[in-house]
Amino acid sequence: MAKKAIAEFIGTFVLVFVGTGCAVLGGGMSGVGILGIAVAFGLALMAMCYSIGTISGCHINPAVSVAMFINKRMNLKELISYIIAQCLGAILGSTVLYLILKAGKKPLTNFGQNSFGHFTWWGVFLTEFVLTFIFVLVILVVTGKKGNPIVAGLVIGLTLTAVHLVGIPVDGTSVNPARSLGPALFAGGQALGQLWVFIVAPIAGGILSSIVSMFILDSEK
Amino acid sequence: MAKKAIAEFIGTFVLVFVGTGCAVLGGGMSGVGILGIAVAFGLALMAMCYSIGTISGCHINPAVSVAMFINKRMNLKELISYIIAQCLGAILGSTVLYLILKAGKKPLTNFGQNSFGHFTWWGVFLTEFVLTFIFVLVILVVTGKKGNPIVAGLVIGLTLTAVHLVGIPVDGTSVNPARSLGPALFAGGQALGQLWVFIVAPIAGGILSSIVSMFILDSEK
Amino acid sequence: MAKKAIAEFIGTFVLVFVGTGCAVLGGGMSGVGILGIAVAFGLALMAMCYSIGTISGCHINPAVSVAMFINKRMNLKELISYIIAQCLGAILGSTVLYLILKAGKKPLTNFGQNSFGHFTWWGVFLTEFVLTFIFVLVILVVTGKKGNPIVAGLVIGLTLTAVHLVGIPVDGTSVNPARSLGPALFAGGQALGQLWVFIVAPIAGGILSSIVSMFILDSEK
Amino acid sequence: MAKKAIAEFIGTFVLVFVGTGCAVLGGGMSGVGILGIAVAFGLALMAMCYSIGTISGCHINPAVSVAMFINKRMNLKELISYIIAQCLGAILGSTVLYLILKAGKKPLTNFGQNSFGHFTWWGVFLTEFVLTFIFVLVILVVTGKKGNPIVAGLVIGLTLTAVHLVGIPVDGTSVNPARSLGPALFAGGQALGQLWVFIVAPIAGGILSSIVSMFILDSEK
Repeated sequence: MAKKAIAEFIGTFVLVFVGTGCAVLGGGMSGVGILGIAVAFGLALMAMCYSIGTISGCHINPAVSVAMFINKRMNLKELISYIIAQCLGAILGSTVLYLILKAGKKPLTNFGQNSFGHFTWWGVFLTEFVLTFIFVLVILVVTGKKGNPIVAGLVIGLTLTAVHLVGIPVDGTSVNPARSLGPALFAGGQALGQLWVFIVAPIAGGILSSIVSMFILDSEK
Repeated sequence: MAKKAIAEFIGTFVLVFVGTGCAVLGGGMSGVGILGIAVAFGLALMAMCYSIGTISGCHINPAVSVAMFINKRMNLKELISYIIAQCLGAILGSTVLYLILKAGKKPLTNFGQNSFGHFTWWGVFLTEFVLTFIFVLVILVVTGKKGNPIVAGLVIGLTLTAVHLVGIPVDGTSVNPARSLGPALFAGGQALGQLWVFIVAPIAGGILSSIVSMFILDSEK
Repeated sequence: MAKKAIAEFIGTFVLVFVGTGCAVLGGGMSGVGILGIAVAFGLALMAMCYSIGTISGCHINPAVSVAMFINKRMNLKELISYIIAQCLGAILGSTVLYLILKAGKKPLTNFGQNSFGHFTWWGVFLTEFVLTFIFVLVILVVTGKKGNPIVAGLVIGLTLTAVHLVGIPVDGTSVNPARSLGPALFAGGQALGQLWVFIVAPIAGGILSSIVSMFILDSEK
Repeated sequence: MAKKAIAEFIGTFVLVFVGTGCAVLGGGMSGVGILGIAVAFGLALMAMCYSIGTISGCHINPAVSVAMFINKRMNLKELISYIIAQCLGAILGSTVLYLILKAGKKPLTNFGQNSFGHFTWWGVFLTEFVLTFIFVLVILVVTGKKGNPIVAGLVIGLTLTAVHLVGIPVDGTSVNPARSLGPALFAGGQALGQLWVFIVAPIAGGILSSIVSMFILDSEK
C-alpha cells in the first residue's frame, strides 16, 4: 500500500506542476491560452494514467477517490492514504513551481490558484459540480466492468481537457480539491477563503457520478 | 429502454453544455478561438461515447439516430424515445449555461446558438449538409460491421472537431438538430427563425451517409 | 474496384474540403491559426482512414499511392484508378468550397492553394520533399507487416498535422499532389505555374520513403 | 545493429526538424504559439514511435537511452551507437532547417536553440530535471512489463507535448541533449555556453526516472 500512496503522491505532483506551471509560466489565458492550459492538464493526467496508474489506478484527485470508495472499489483506509498522498503531492507541485518562479525573478502572486473571478460563489459551485460530475462519470465507466483499458488513460485525460475548456474562464477549473489546495497555500488570502467551494463542489459532483454510474450506467456489473 | 433514454439525455446535456459553454464563457472565436471550441465539442462527444455510450451507443444527435434507424440498427419506437431525450438534454444544457451566465452577471444574448452570419441560407444549408454527411459517415462505419470498437469514441469525437473547424466561421456548426434547439430556445428571435436549416440539413446529410455507408462502404455486412 | 475508386474520391473530397475549408473560411494563419489548420487536415485524414479506409485503404494522395505501388501493395491499374479518383475528389472539394464562399459573398481569390510565399522554389521543394518523406514513411510502416491497425488512422492523421505545423508558414503544405491540384484550378495563375513543385516533390519524397521503409525498416516482411 | 542506429538517426532528424522547424518557421511563441510548438514536438515523436520505433524502439534522445541502459534494456555498446546516431540525426535536422531558412532569406539567428531566457541557470536546471523525470518515467512504464504497446507511441508523444507546455516559456524545452545540440551548433555563442545544462539536467532527470520506475512502479517485473 505504501507504493500506491507514493504513486499517488508523484502523480498529483505532476498534475499540479504541469497544469498550473503551464498556466502561470505561459502567461495565462492571454498567453498560452485557454486551450493550451486545458491541454496541459489533460495530457499530464493521461501521462500519469499510463505510468503511476499501473500501481495506484491514478486517481490523483480526492473527488475521484471518494467516488471509487462509494462504488466499493477501495476501502476507507486506502481512501485516507490516497487523499493524504494527493494533498502532499499537490503541495510539492506548487513548491517546485514557486522555486522556478523565484529563479525567473517573476512576481510571486499567481500560482494557478482557483478563484471566483467575476462569478458569484453559487455560479462557481454549480460549474464545479457539473464539470466534476462529467469528469468522474467518464472515469468510473471507462475503468469499470464495461470499460476500455487500452484507451482509458487517453479518454480520461482528454475529458479533463474538455471540462477545463469550460471552467477556465469561470474559475480556472478545479474539479479536484488537491489541485486547488496546493496553489491556495502559496497564494493565501482570498484563495484560502474560497477553497471550500473547490473542495465541496467537486466531491459532491463525484458522488452524483457514483450514483449515476452504478444505477443508470451499470458500471459495476 | 428507459436507461437508454436517460443515457441519451445525459449525453446530449453534456455535449451542449460543454460545447456551447466553452464558446460562450470563453469569449467565442476571438477568445478561446475556433480550435478551442472545436476541441470542446469533439472531446465532450468522445467523453460521452466512453461513458453513456456503453448503455445507449451515444448518438446524442437526432441526425445520427435517424441514420441508425435507416441502417436498421434501431426501431421506430427507440428512434422517437432517443430524439425526445436528446432534445430535453440539450435544453437542460442551455439552462445550466444560462444559470452560470446569470451568476457571472454577463449579457444574456449569446447562448451559443447557430446562425447564418454573413452567409445566405443555402450556403449554410450546403455547409451543414456536407459536414453532417462527413460526420455521420464516420460514425456509421466505425461502429459498423468493419468498425473499430476500441478507438471508435476517439475517432468520432475528433471527427466532430474536424467538422467544427470548417463550420464555426460559417454558422457556428450544428450537424445536430438537438444542439441547435437548446440555445435557440434561450436566444429566441432570429435563432428560432433559422432553426429549420439546422434541423433539415443535418438530417438530410445523415441520410446520405446511410446510403453511402450501406451501398458503397458495406458498413452493414 | 469501382467501390475503391469511389471511396478514394469521397476521401480526397473530404480532405481537401475540410483542410482548405478550415484555412480559407477560418481566416488563415492570423485567424484560425497554423495549429487549427494543421489539426483540420490531420483529423480529416484520420476520419477518412476509419471510414472509406475500410474499402480502399485511404490513400487519398497520389504520393501515397505511388509509394504503395513501389512497395508492391497495389498494381499499376489500381494505381491509375486511384490517382484519377483522388484528383476528381480534390476538384469536387474545391468546388464545394467555392460555392460556400460565393454564398458568403467573400472574395474569391483564396482557395487554400499552395504557393512559394517568400521562399525560393528549391526551398519549397526541399520542404515538401522532406515532409512527404516523413509522412509517407509513417504510413508505410504503420500499415505494413509490423503495423498497428487499431491506431493506424490516428497515427497517420496526427502525422499529417505534424508536417503541416512545419510547412504551413512556408508554402501552406501540400505533401499531396491532389490536394494542391484542386485549389490551383480555381486560383489559376501563379498557383498553376507553381503546381509542378507540389506534384514532383511529394512523389519524390514518397519514393524515398518506399526505399527506406523496405530496406531499413523492413516494413514489407 | 546498423539498422537500429540508422533508425535512431532518422528519428532524431525528424524530431529536431519538425519541432524546431515549427518553432522557427512559425514565428515562435507569438506566431504558431506555445501549444503549436508543443504539439509539433509531441506528434513528431509519436510519428517516429510508430515508424522507426519498430526497429530501434525510438529513443531518439540520449536521456532516454541512458535510462534504458540503467534499466538493463540495452547494453553499453548499443547505448554508445544510439547516442552517436541521435547526435548526428539532430545535426542533420538543424542543417536542413538552415537550408530552408536560407531559401526564405530569413535571418539566420534563430534555430530553435534552448536558452536560459529570463531564468537563472539553476531555475532552468530544475525545470529540465523535473520535466525529463516526468517524460522518461512515462516512457519506461508504458514500454515496460506492464506497458501498453498499442497506444504507447501516442502516450509518449503526447507526454512530450505536455512537458513542452511548461518548459517552452522557460527555456524552449529540451528534455533531450541531442535536440539541444543540433540547434546550438548553428546558433553558436551563448547557446553553446549554456549547452551543458541541457545535457546534464535531462540525463539526471532520466536517471531518477529509472530508479522510480524500477523500485516504485515495478516497470521491469
